[in-house]
Amino acid sequence: MKIRVGFGFDVHQLVEGCALWLGGIRLEHAKGLLGHSDADVLVHSICDALLGAANMRDIGYHFPDTAGEYKNIDSKILLKRTVELIAEKGYRIGNIDATICAERPKLKPHIPLMQETLAAVMAIDIDDISIKATTTEKLGFTGREEGISAYVTVLIEKE
Amino acid sequence: MKIRVGFGFDVHQLVEGCALWLGGIRLEHAKGLLGHSDADVLVHSICDALLGAANMRDIGYHFPDTAGEYKNIDSKILLKRTVELIAEKGYRIGNIDATICAERPKLKPHIPLMQETLAAVMAIDIDDISIKATTTEKLGFTGREEGISAYVTVLIEKE
Amino acid sequence: MKIRVGFGFDVHQLVEGCALWLGGIRLEHAKGLLGHSDADVLVHSICDALLGAANMRDIGYHFPDTAGEYKNIDSKILLKRTVELIAEKGYRIGNIDATICAERPKLKPHIPLMQETLAAVMAIDIDDISIKATTTEKLGFTGREEGISAYVTVLIEKE
Repeated sequence: MKIRVGFGFDVHQLVEGCALWLGGIRLEHAKGLLGHSDADVLVHSICDALLGAANMRDIGYHFPDTAGEYKNIDSKILLKRTVELIAEKGYRIGNIDATICAERPKLKPHIPLMQETLAAVMAIDIDDISIKATTTEKLGFTGREEGISAYVTVLIEKE
Repeated sequence: MKIRVGFGFDVHQLVEGCALWLGGIRLEHAKGLLGHSDADVLVHSICDALLGAANMRDIGYHFPDTAGEYKNIDSKILLKRTVELIAEKGYRIGNIDATICAERPKLKPHIPLMQETLAAVMAIDIDDISIKATTTEKLGFTGREEGISAYVTVLIEKE
Repeated sequence: MKIRVGFGFDVHQLVEGCALWLGGIRLEHAKGLLGHSDADVLVHSICDALLGAANMRDIGYHFPDTAGEYKNIDSKILLKRTVELIAEKGYRIGNIDATICAERPKLKPHIPLMQETLAAVMAIDIDDISIKATTTEKLGFTGREEGISAYVTVLIEKE
């Protein structure tokens, strides 16, 4: 069996007047993430990590933010398509470990629903997607609540 | 053998009037890291990477910073407990690679003692824990010496 | 076969009056990266990820920026030497996945040439080096175009 590693990192601005979509679910918060799609920074980082592991370019290459068809799109659709793309090259997901950096809102209570939601989209076992949350202790742009970032590492496998 | 990947990222503020604990050892420096525990940002990132690889939530879930029992605790105790937690799920450590981002102090001379100290806490071979140090070239909050961050990637294994 | 994971992160300042070397190639841009060598932040991160995976310290340890012999050096020479260093310990590259964070210039059209160039330096298949590019949505030092950063994850193998 061949095993490959991938890594994704993404950032979106937190602004007033946007809904906050994160990990495939909508959270109640005074601000939301700004982007061409629903701006789900965690889902975008997972897509990038999977594409990178399979060496299939990145999310901006497959789903350009200049394309009308991706305007306001639910990022879960992009994730499903990403899993299909790597499957076309013979890869399946080994495991995913994600870290969201956000000062607020408190993410801990929402992690299990994010895991359940994204596992269903990718058709993987819930044990194969870990999601963690941390603050950056009020430092940097995530600490100042100007944005949210997400780091994702993945292993993918091929027989 | 099943192999899984994990990733941890953590940040603590650098402030005057605190001791600087990093990589399980105390360093002489004009400032130290602020936190509920001893604020050892490298050890916290290792814990998060191991928990993430095993899909067992994160350090804030197991050792909440609202709990009196973790006030000023030596983070090596949390690391030892983390290794026990993943062992309960059948996992052992493959290898760990860590990167500390700090403008100062110079960390290079202290890396071997950090490796030796943490390898002993986790009961692993010293060859299985790599620790690297970099500056961010005076950019960002680490560059301004407002904080120190650490990135950690791990592989864990199960028969 | 033994498999190990590594992670590299590096930052260089973007300043006027420097050439921009990135991913082993020279790009046309109003600013360039500042450093002791050619400051190729992507190549430096790859070196660090490979050294970390093999537990052989970091790029600053092997190629100190205080050494005259590395002044203005082409980082591809450091990368070739790094691949030799890990080979001396019995390791070969499994796969590499890199992410460059830069607001400008647009990197997408240059990725294939970077892959081709670095694959040749490391004597690996082009399918084993993925390079992705993202902005940080105008946030942080990369968003303000004060610097460029790169994250790299690698797997290395030994029989």
